[in-house]
Amino acid sequence: MAIGRESLENVFKISNPKWRTSITKVEPNSIITRGYSQEDLIGNVSFSEMVYLLIKGEMPSKKESKMLGSVLVSFCDHGVTPPSTQAARMIASAGSPVHACIAGGLLAFGKNHAGAIERSMKAFQEFIQRSDLEEDIYNNAKNFVDGYLKKGSKIPGFGHRYHSEDPRAARLIDMAKKHGCIGPHTRLAMAVQEILLEMKDIKMNIDGANAGILSDMGFDWRTGTGIFMIGRLPGLISHVYEEKVREPDFRKFFDVEEIYYDGMEERKVSYIHDLKRTMD
Amino acid sequence: MAIGRESLENVFKISNPKWRTSITKVEPNSIITRGYSQEDLIGNVSFSEMVYLLIKGEMPSKKESKMLGSVLVSFCDHGVTPPSTQAARMIASAGSPVHACIAGGLLAFGKNHAGAIERSMKAFQEFIQRSDLEEDIYNNAKNFVDGYLKKGSKIPGFGHRYHSEDPRAARLIDMAKKHGCIGPHTRLAMAVQEILLEMKDIKMNIDGANAGILSDMGFDWRTGTGIFMIGRLPGLISHVYEEKVREPDFRKFFDVEEIYYDGMEERKVSYIHDLKRTMD
Amino acid sequence: MAIGRESLENVFKISNPKWRTSITKVEPNSIITRGYSQEDLIGNVSFSEMVYLLIKGEMPSKKESKMLGSVLVSFCDHGVTPPSTQAARMIASAGSPVHACIAGGLLAFGKNHAGAIERSMKAFQEFIQRSDLEEDIYNNAKNFVDGYLKKGSKIPGFGHRYHSEDPRAARLIDMAKKHGCIGPHTRLAMAVQEILLEMKDIKMNIDGANAGILSDMGFDWRTGTGIFMIGRLPGLISHVYEEKVREPDFRKFFDVEEIYYDGMEERKVSYIHDLKRTMD
Amino acid sequence: MAIGRESLENVFKISNPKWRTSITKVEPNSIITRGYSQEDLIGNVSFSEMVYLLIKGEMPSKKESKMLGSVLVSFCDHGVTPPSTQAARMIASAGSPVHACIAGGLLAFGKNHAGAIERSMKAFQEFIQRSDLEEDIYNNAKNFVDGYLKKGSKIPGFGHRYHSEDPRAARLIDMAKKHGCIGPHTRLAMAVQEILLEMKDIKMNIDGANAGILSDMGFDWRTGTGIFMIGRLPGLISHVYEEKVREPDFRKFFDVEEIYYDGMEERKVSYIHDLKRTMD
Repeated sequence: MAIGRESLENVFKISNPKWRTSITKVEPNSIITRGYSQEDLIGNVSFSEMVYLLIKGEMPSKKESKMLGSVLVSFCDHGVTPPSTQAARMIASAGSPVHACIAGGLLAFGKNHAGAIERSMKAFQEFIQRSDLEEDIYNNAKNFVDGYLKKGSKIPGFGHRYHSEDPRAARLIDMAKKHGCIGPHTRLAMAVQEILLEMKDIKMNIDGANAGILSDMGFDWRTGTGIFMIGRLPGLISHVYEEKVREPDFRKFFDVEEIYYDGMEERKVSYIHDLKRTMD
Repeated sequence: MAIGRESLENVFKISNPKWRTSITKVEPNSIITRGYSQEDLIGNVSFSEMVYLLIKGEMPSKKESKMLGSVLVSFCDHGVTPPSTQAARMIASAGSPVHACIAGGLLAFGKNHAGAIERSMKAFQEFIQRSDLEEDIYNNAKNFVDGYLKKGSKIPGFGHRYHSEDPRAARLIDMAKKHGCIGPHTRLAMAVQEILLEMKDIKMNIDGANAGILSDMGFDWRTGTGIFMIGRLPGLISHVYEEKVREPDFRKFFDVEEIYYDGMEERKVSYIHDLKRTMD
Repeated sequence: MAIGRESLENVFKISNPKWRTSITKVEPNSIITRGYSQEDLIGNVSFSEMVYLLIKGEMPSKKESKMLGSVLVSFCDHGVTPPSTQAARMIASAGSPVHACIAGGLLAFGKNHAGAIERSMKAFQEFIQRSDLEEDIYNNAKNFVDGYLKKGSKIPGFGHRYHSEDPRAARLIDMAKKHGCIGPHTRLAMAVQEILLEMKDIKMNIDGANAGILSDMGFDWRTGTGIFMIGRLPGLISHVYEEKVREPDFRKFFDVEEIYYDGMEERKVSYIHDLKRTMD
Repeated sequence: MAIGRESLENVFKISNPKWRTSITKVEPNSIITRGYSQEDLIGNVSFSEMVYLLIKGEMPSKKESKMLGSVLVSFCDHGVTPPSTQAARMIASAGSPVHACIAGGLLAFGKNHAGAIERSMKAFQEFIQRSDLEEDIYNNAKNFVDGYLKKGSKIPGFGHRYHSEDPRAARLIDMAKKHGCIGPHTRLAMAVQEILLEMKDIKMNIDGANAGILSDMGFDWRTGTGIFMIGRLPGLISHVYEEKVREPDFRKFFDVEEIYYDGMEERKVSYIHDLKRTMD
């Protein structure tokens, strides 16, 4: 069968797209994101509303937008204590451009540093999904805690290596109460805290509080690290900027005296080579 | 001189700090950022205010905070057209964790992709600093444009590879007028646009508009890429999430037919080795 | 107790090292790696021997060094088909410096792209560790394959998305035979191939061959991705260099026609806001 | 005009390739790199020869391959002193996968840490290109040094922050003599050292030696950082592995006592907000 060139080109275009996306449609002089033209979004939605819209695909109510704003603010900065901040500043000191410093900092958002928020959201969401919500919340929380105790593993979202009482957690719960954003996940988190406080004098941390709140707002646990990164990015950028404008280039972060070598004593390549080659 | 161990330890602590920061002070159960306790910040400032506070070190006025919110929203997403978004989704398809996908995406914020905002801010700031602001703005803009024409180089902040009229730019200028955030840098940008429109039918793009506005708000040009990254991060995260939940693992982004090899024809290692070794 | 400042400083230095390493000892004008001075290593060991020494902590025999050389060469390049190479070139086109392009490329070494070598090494090593090596190898391989069939999961190290017969695998096995580097892991890989060929017409790929060989050479499976990265890095660098010197800046890797938007149709922020706010 | 579908598809394939590469041609069951089949390369070339082939596009002579091997070995490791190594280990401690740790480490190869090799190669290559090589080398070196003294800037490739005499540099020059790899660039480096030694007691470092040697071998200065990365990658991998197997997860790299806050004293959001809003 022979067909016209133009119509065939159209067939090719439509039938074989490389990319499919439901986020933004780009056409000449028009950018539509989640169904809204960007001219309409600029000035009409706050940045928190934009974050919500991008990740959840729909516009938040005013209360949800305020709540997400509080969550994002709570992740803002923890000084120079986190490895992400230290790595970003080291890379800045080594003379890399800002975007490379930030990328390097974010690479430290590994499972030990930033993983707790997603682990906590996943645990809450999976537990709530299979729980009888008519059941007493305290009993549910008891089962939740027992599961971890049996495995002997740490409960994500509780305890902090710098704070015996994470000052952000209680404040976040207060905001959730104020904005009516408390549902079964946050209630579970609060009941777990009650149990752990009595058992081990351990309190909820920022990850536990946000995991409950974000879950009650309907965020999939797979978006947890992303939301943490959004909240922390402005802090990382201010640290990279501070390093670049206030500190000397290529400074030594550790003294040689802080390094301890416990490897092999000195030997000669030729001696070892002779030994090894007799093996061949 | 002999001294007590404890007092000496204190001397060591104070006299030899490894890190100096003016951003956040972390003490047990207390986190103070830019002079505000984080409990006080959570719920009392919007996320845009937090961004402003972290980067500039001080709290914005209400109008400044709204203006920065509009700037951040304007950077939100450009679909799957930018190399940063494509790289992030490729890395997601390859099975890396979210933070690694985002880091990889940000690494594409190179001078050709995200560099225009800083180049534009730098150009505006340096030009305004050495300009006589009593002088007619149109004459100043003429000099600004002439400088680029003489060098034969592109003026950063004007023209766009997808849009003949970037829909975000005009809207941002409108918001700047509304919030009283227009100063000499934005006025320069507007006058430059007037000249370029007549000469070459080229309009201001999002970078030119934001470069003028951010400069008038007092942001150092070195923070431009950082602010772009803050605005774009939620979009990148939604793309990585979309890739992970909607697309097959390790999909082929290009067909083999789209690849063209124009290197050496086949030859034998042994033949070349024999030739080369006669040279030694 | 009062003590002299100098002796106390020494106490501090020795008792509180921040870093412990067995790899390299750096002292003024002296660098000792794995027990050899670097002056002694330069010129006396090949780069493959150096790789072996760094990762295993000891010098290889001549045969082991040749074998590792073959393994590293086998990982060298796969054109522009892998997402790591595509991402690195995209980041180069966006104008980032070489080290950022390479970092971005390596970030695509996720579990779907580069993960098979470690999964394969882990599977072989764990299986061999708990196997009776006196047992017939074919029976062992049968059990190995059955384990995967029961779970319905793919056997790492077998099959390739571009090659029905990966040309590198057979050659690597030949080299292993030649250098006497075949042990129980490689024998297992070969027997698994025999079974899969008959059952499903699937052959061993580069990962399966190298997983067997590296395991027989005593490399911990946790070093597999690292060894792959060492072998692939020169290829990635030549691609980034090629992109930078031969292609235009910021080229479009995809046409707009290749993008398909299936998100929300256009609506107005104001309308949605009004709807939502009645919910608060 | 109407044409057959098949022939049109062929037109599309040939006329619109997305990727062009001269490095590797991938076809089913065939991988040709720089004109050699990979089966032919595996076992017939050393890894150093492969590096040379990939980056320069042609096979080295035996002497060139030994020389490049020495260069790569010389970059192998510098303990835990470089920021790249520290960043990679921090990211490992934070629980990121190996490829993310390595990417983060490489991001610290910024202009202050790894930039000297390229700056030095560029300076040598540009100077030699415009020099009269019949002229006395010492006079040429004098002009080279004077250029830097006039600008008051550091000469890349000379001096080291840990070693007054970099033990690798002299050894590399010896190997270059042995392999007949000394040409005008290395001679320039040696003459510059002579001058600097007398003037400032400063010696050539590893970057200066390798810059001369690689330039004499015909490597474009833009490949310098890449070659450094190839040489250093095995060391980085052994550090990440050491961190993961020997050190506790998420260890604190700095004590809180090593951190000094010099930012704003505490104040109240509400007080500042009230002040600021009167400005609007």
